Amino acid sequence: MIDLSRANPLRDPQDRRLPRIAGPSVLVIFGVTGDLATKKLMPAVYDLANRGLLPPGFALVGFARRDWADQDFAEIVHDAVQKHARTPFREEVWQQLIDGIRFVPGDFDDDAAFAQLKQTIIELDESRGTGGNHAFYLSIPPRFFENVVDQLRRHGMADQDGGRWRRVIIEKPFGHDLESARDLNRIVSSVFPSSSVFRIDHYLGKETVQNMLALRFANQMFDPIWNNNYIDQVQITMAEDIGIGGRAGYYDGIGAARDVIQNHLLQLLALTAMEEPTSFDARQLRTEKQKVLAATRPPADIDAHTARGRYTRAWAGGRNVRGYLEEEGISPDSITETYAAIRVDIDNRRWAGVPFYLRTGKRLARRTTEVALGFKRAPHLPFDNTDTEELGANALVMRIQPDEGITLRFGAKVPGTQMEIRQVNMDFAYGGSFTESSPEAYERLILDVLLGDPPLFPQHEEVELSWQILDPILQHWENSGMPPQDYAAGSWGPMVADEMMARDGHVWRRP
Amino acid sequence: MIDLSRANPLRDPQDRRLPRIAGPSVLVIFGVTGDLATKKLMPAVYDLANRGLLPPGFALVGFARRDWADQDFAEIVHDAVQKHARTPFREEVWQQLIDGIRFVPGDFDDDAAFAQLKQTIIELDESRGTGGNHAFYLSIPPRFFENVVDQLRRHGMADQDGGRWRRVIIEKPFGHDLESARDLNRIVSSVFPSSSVFRIDHYLGKETVQNMLALRFANQMFDPIWNNNYIDQVQITMAEDIGIGGRAGYYDGIGAARDVIQNHLLQLLALTAMEEPTSFDARQLRTEKQKVLAATRPPADIDAHTARGRYTRAWAGGRNVRGYLEEEGISPDSITETYAAIRVDIDNRRWAGVPFYLRTGKRLARRTTEVALGFKRAPHLPFDNTDTEELGANALVMRIQPDEGITLRFGAKVPGTQMEIRQVNMDFAYGGSFTESSPEAYERLILDVLLGDPPLFPQHEEVELSWQILDPILQHWENSGMPPQDYAAGSWGPMVADEMMARDGHVWRRP
Repeated sequence: MIDLSRANPLRDPQDRRLPRIAGPSVLVIFGVTGDLATKKLMPAVYDLANRGLLPPGFALVGFARRDWADQDFAEIVHDAVQKHARTPFREEVWQQLIDGIRFVPGDFDDDAAFAQLKQTIIELDESRGTGGNHAFYLSIPPRFFENVVDQLRRHGMADQDGGRWRRVIIEKPFGHDLESARDLNRIVSSVFPSSSVFRIDHYLGKETVQNMLALRFANQMFDPIWNNNYIDQVQITMAEDIGIGGRAGYYDGIGAARDVIQNHLLQLLALTAMEEPTSFDARQLRTEKQKVLAATRPPADIDAHTARGRYTRAWAGGRNVRGYLEEEGISPDSITETYAAIRVDIDNRRWAGVPFYLRTGKRLARRTTEVALGFKRAPHLPFDNTDTEELGANALVMRIQPDEGITLRFGAKVPGTQMEIRQVNMDFAYGGSFTESSPEAYERLILDVLLGDPPLFPQHEEVELSWQILDPILQHWENSGMPPQDYAAGSWGPMVADEMMARDGHVWRRP
Repeated sequence: MIDLSRANPLRDPQDRRLPRIAGPSVLVIFGVTGDLATKKLMPAVYDLANRGLLPPGFALVGFARRDWADQDFAEIVHDAVQKHARTPFREEVWQQLIDGIRFVPGDFDDDAAFAQLKQTIIELDESRGTGGNHAFYLSIPPRFFENVVDQLRRHGMADQDGGRWRRVIIEKPFGHDLESARDLNRIVSSVFPSSSVFRIDHYLGKETVQNMLALRFANQMFDPIWNNNYIDQVQITMAEDIGIGGRAGYYDGIGAARDVIQNHLLQLLALTAMEEPTSFDARQLRTEKQKVLAATRPPADIDAHTARGRYTRAWAGGRNVRGYLEEEGISPDSITETYAAIRVDIDNRRWAGVPFYLRTGKRLARRTTEVALGFKRAPHLPFDNTDTEELGANALVMRIQPDEGITLRFGAKVPGTQMEIRQVNMDFAYGGSFTESSPEAYERLILDVLLGDPPLFPQHEEVELSWQILDPILQHWENSGMPPQDYAAGSWGPMVADEMMARDGHVWRRP
């Protein structure tokens, strides 16, 4: 890691009490015409600038196959910021930013375009004072990674050069199985050393995900019950109420498990289940995440402990929505799943015997992401003749989005002249307790890239471990040749998913 | 205990899932002209009737030195119910009740009056079908107990007679020290067997107090952290914002420690600290309470670990209120405390090393009763360079009254791009979670007396144990001959109380 104190000798980059301000740098975005760039990346850059976290010596360079001048691109950025930025638009911030905005038109195999990119960056280093520090954001399909990193190498833009850094940012999918993930990694790491590769799982940039770490490790009261003595089962859910939208080309053949479980849900599992790291240094944090992922194993009986589904036409959210096979661009003989649920077990002292259930789906009843720890029932109830079955069990739910917060579910006495117990909720709402508004995940992550602060970025090892968990399941599903089970759009998924839980004596939460 | 199934062969009195309905009985109240009778007891009887928990064969008899006819007393009851009952007034319930209302005028040493009382009860047993079951509520100063129980004995009203029961209900103060408590007990138990003596500590009838047991024992998640591995200190507070009102005659010479700590606060301590009883049978519950009270010891250095205070004239709640010495009927050389705080320790495996701080006072800043468990800080914080001191510690607060509920205080991440932790609250409000409204403590307790259900009534052993804890402290204060330290009405008590906490490195909560 580059010592940023050179750029700003007054601050210790490790001191998290001080505002973390990026040093001089250029951010190059490949794929600026995509949704992610306009909805998330450009607004995040502006928001960082608006919060005073970008230095004067900062520049933003777009690269795409468009016949644009700098001015045209600046207008695109301007519109994206106006439309999607989290913080209010301020003209003086924009004026400061616009001076450093450049555009380079070109194809990924166009040598001249990359030569021009290099020229542009060098010019910025001189005119804008960006200090020779360059981050390349590959907001493009993985099949183009090889082209782009090779171009960067050949034009000398990937050289780690003294005190000046060169970093590359890549987004999921990190392959579509273990083998392709390894290939992809080979391509990127042949050009950039692993410490310069920043893999984005935007879930890790979410405040509520980081708050999971605060909850577990900044408090005395949760850790003692965070284990198989007290916890019965864990359910990690990412439910979407939307369909695949216009993403048929990306989604078909990928499916819910690869799209969500491999990255977001297994990362949430890692943060929920890992041991306490010695510190939040990237190395310590990754060590713990890798340990727990390495201990996580797919079910032996895959048919019994996984479930696939595919949404069909139904009324959902007040309108009649089409089924997956009717979506534009989906082949009628597709067997891609839009819902996936799997049980995994973690073979270590803390978690042995506690099933972790992961599920995700599109066109479900509600949009929600949460991690729910279900506790065992109290071992003994001194309330004589009280019906234990009525009791339900305690739960601690970390609500990732929307309605971010924490819920504790426990038994309380029903008012009245008998000892009757009913489950009640205790609630903490992130929004209600802090006046600070939460930065977007991409603000946090882009800033971390510019600061060279790697804790929130999964390394290739984690990607590999995740595929090792998922590969046997995907393989089994593929070998079966069977299509996923239908579920009505707007429901909570296919019947097989409920049956899978019933087999273990559990039920899915209805968040 | 009398087998109630004889009175109602269809119900098992131990089955707490069924409505608990009293059997045929007469409730005799001595002291019906007092505040307690009109504000609490009469309304509670009506509320029980209104809820269908009293049988047709129920009667209420008042006894006092007033020249009233039954009709006059019925009007007094009517007014009290109209003014203070919790449930709506219904004419048909009242009509049912009024038929069983009687009044007996007389003095406590008036033999003829007690003969008439007996006549009245016998007549009710016949005409009203009250079945020969009689409860005598001594809502009178303890100095009259001897007179009354002796009269009851001499007129044959205390005889436990076959399947028919005779019970006596007494209210605090149960003496003003160990010796006088023993005397009082000797008087009452010379006439009534201990299983027929029901001592009322109305705190134990409160829903929120019983909910402490539900919280601890109906859940899996609280017990594991309910010990000295995780808990640092416990603060039990009963703060009143009012002064002594017209109760100078009772209060002066008694003071805050005898009035509140000896009964309410030590009972709350017992329920907070006791081991899990095998069941909520009275015997099991009392065994655990007695065990923990027996393990509770007053501080060795009483000056260092207790504090006394007395309120002085000040602005409180928007008006200028007089000081204690200026209250009507208080002698200017009184050294009675209106604020008392003590530290006790519990010498057992669960609590060794955890101080329990009990405090109570009049004319404090706010009316509140709560039990607050303060947790230790997390043993290690992986957030490098984060200032541990800023963190505060976790707390679990059981709010007894008002604003009944539970608060959990823990550290959460402050939104922003650094790992900054701040304390936040998670809340459960009893009122917000249940549509059932809470019965008054006296409803519960009177019903329990009529049912012969003793778990919520402290036995004499608990009273003795409480005095054993308090006696050395009261003795020490008295021997010092010093008046309590002044505190301004509307403040949080005297400076010595803060100093007492500072000595242990703690501070009082400001609830």
